[in-house]
Amino acid sequence: MRIFHTPDSGRHDPERYLRRGTPIPHPEQAARYAILRDAALQGGHDLAEPADHGLDPIRAVHDPDYVAFLAEAWARRGEIPDIGDEILTGSFARPQMHRRPAGLLGRLGLYTADTSTPIRAGTWAAVYGSAQCAVAAADAALAAGHAYALCRPPGHHAYAESAGGFCFLNNSAIAAERMRVATGGPVAILDIDVHHGNGTQGIFYARADVLTVSVHADPSDYFPFFAGYADETGTGSGAGFNRNLPLPPGSGDAPWLEALEAGLAAVAAHRPRALVVALGLDAAADDPIGALAVTRAGFVGAAERIGRAGLPTALVQEGGYLCAALPDNLAAFLAAFDAAR
Amino acid sequence: MRIFHTPDSGRHDPERYLRRGTPIPHPEQAARYAILRDAALQGGHDLAEPADHGLDPIRAVHDPDYVAFLAEAWARRGEIPDIGDEILTGSFARPQMHRRPAGLLGRLGLYTADTSTPIRAGTWAAVYGSAQCAVAAADAALAAGHAYALCRPPGHHAYAESAGGFCFLNNSAIAAERMRVATGGPVAILDIDVHHGNGTQGIFYARADVLTVSVHADPSDYFPFFAGYADETGTGSGAGFNRNLPLPPGSGDAPWLEALEAGLAAVAAHRPRALVVALGLDAAADDPIGALAVTRAGFVGAAERIGRAGLPTALVQEGGYLCAALPDNLAAFLAAFDAAR
Repeated sequence: MRIFHTPDSGRHDPERYLRRGTPIPHPEQAARYAILRDAALQGGHDLAEPADHGLDPIRAVHDPDYVAFLAEAWARRGEIPDIGDEILTGSFARPQMHRRPAGLLGRLGLYTADTSTPIRAGTWAAVYGSAQCAVAAADAALAAGHAYALCRPPGHHAYAESAGGFCFLNNSAIAAERMRVATGGPVAILDIDVHHGNGTQGIFYARADVLTVSVHADPSDYFPFFAGYADETGTGSGAGFNRNLPLPPGSGDAPWLEALEAGLAAVAAHRPRALVVALGLDAAADDPIGALAVTRAGFVGAAERIGRAGLPTALVQEGGYLCAALPDNLAAFLAAFDAAR
Repeated sequence: MRIFHTPDSGRHDPERYLRRGTPIPHPEQAARYAILRDAALQGGHDLAEPADHGLDPIRAVHDPDYVAFLAEAWARRGEIPDIGDEILTGSFARPQMHRRPAGLLGRLGLYTADTSTPIRAGTWAAVYGSAQCAVAAADAALAAGHAYALCRPPGHHAYAESAGGFCFLNNSAIAAERMRVATGGPVAILDIDVHHGNGTQGIFYARADVLTVSVHADPSDYFPFFAGYADETGTGSGAGFNRNLPLPPGSGDAPWLEALEAGLAAVAAHRPRALVVALGLDAAADDPIGALAVTRAGFVGAAERIGRAGLPTALVQEGGYLCAALPDNLAAFLAAFDAAR
């Protein structure tokens, strides 16, 4: 399988994560890039760096002003007094407060949802490069049946106009929109990251041409908290085109695969011309911030079921944090997916 | 003048403030209570603790579920693993994400706007006591012409259902609604804190019976960033009943008093039966987080102008942070206000 990656993914290097106000090492570390790349290499897959398709495929799902903010924030850092090695705010726009302030610090609060997405010197390069990997994988999947985009940082918590949950640009949404345009649609996104794909849901919530399905840990006491409930099914012409399958914490392989099958049935009923898998690996039992206790066998089972769907499929890397099982789970997923097709 | 205060105000003791992600000492320190109380004492005013009017005057402007959350959050702290001496989150509800999660951590992100309002052991006692001071000052102002509520923590950044900007319950809004009900209305709020009174504006934005006027530093590059612009004038039946008078940073006494006079003219045109002054003192030149360079003479000028309006007036303490001028500015304001009536 063709694997798209870019060394720029290593250039976003957040150090600290404010877990409930207390700094801890950031779970979404730059080291994830090399670990995932090496895992893919061991599987004998074909590594390639993506061509540069510019900002158009990004702006196809993101607000242009938000994209411009991400691209220029680091260059504008001098606007913030005593700026250090990153730009981060603690003041965020709320549902009832959403004017667009002129200053960088206010812009940051408007365009970020939490304290997990500091902007540093290499952030835009990593974010932009990951989006290009998603575009390349979308194109390659349509040409060759399937491809994998090693996106880092991940993307599925990014809304059309906000970063959050370690994510800046929604790589899965970018890939899906790319495939929808190329095929004439409809397309589907199946998100198996342990966290609900709230940004992806938000981007397509009012649209019927991109079905969004997410299997994840119940958000009532788990990130992203404010979306991901089973009764969120879409709105307007998108009504019926969003499916959430939340699971109780620690539920393990069997309920996860059962939910995945329900998700795949929803995908099949949509008769999509292409599929994006938002491939988080943080449902793993030993993931440091995971919650669903999925084993290597579970990931293999998921890959087999998704592969057997037989759709042109772009696999887009989402979460999955540093632990011994991370590379093994990716290698096992890719191998099983390849074999099932 | 009657001064309402409660020693419970000293029980909310936030240690750290995450300024752009980096912990610094929290500006809204418990020591403000005793400093402001002693300043009032030196002025020969009459100190009293408020009677307890319960939750009804609070629920008159705040969402009951939000109030219940504030009251019970500390007792529920065991729900959060490894909880320390405060409850704080870094993940917040955004405009596009607003389900009500069941768990405490999600609730915290739903009901707080930023990282400035940690909930600690004494927080509810301080917040509740300050609200009772506001109620008592409202009643006393109607009975005796004027009164001062030493509210700490402050309140004007609190919306109907969110804390933020050091604020939990909106004491000025609670006082205004109390006076509106008692007088049959209309009433007005004049906010002279250096920061826009965004919570107060939000609470009354669709209402004609409580005019909200705020004189503050331009929010385009200053807290609260997302509201406080001159073109925000109210909505629905509240259209025309909100007035924002933003000023450039560092503008000094003359533009501040000019804006104040414009604000008082708007108040007079509303023909209110009572007035609440949201009395922030952080427009002061030497306030550590201020931005408007107002001198003691400026505060005296403001007090004289407001006093001459001759309305039943509840002065409600908002911001004003630790600096040498803080007690002097309060004492000077109260003395000039008293003398002008």
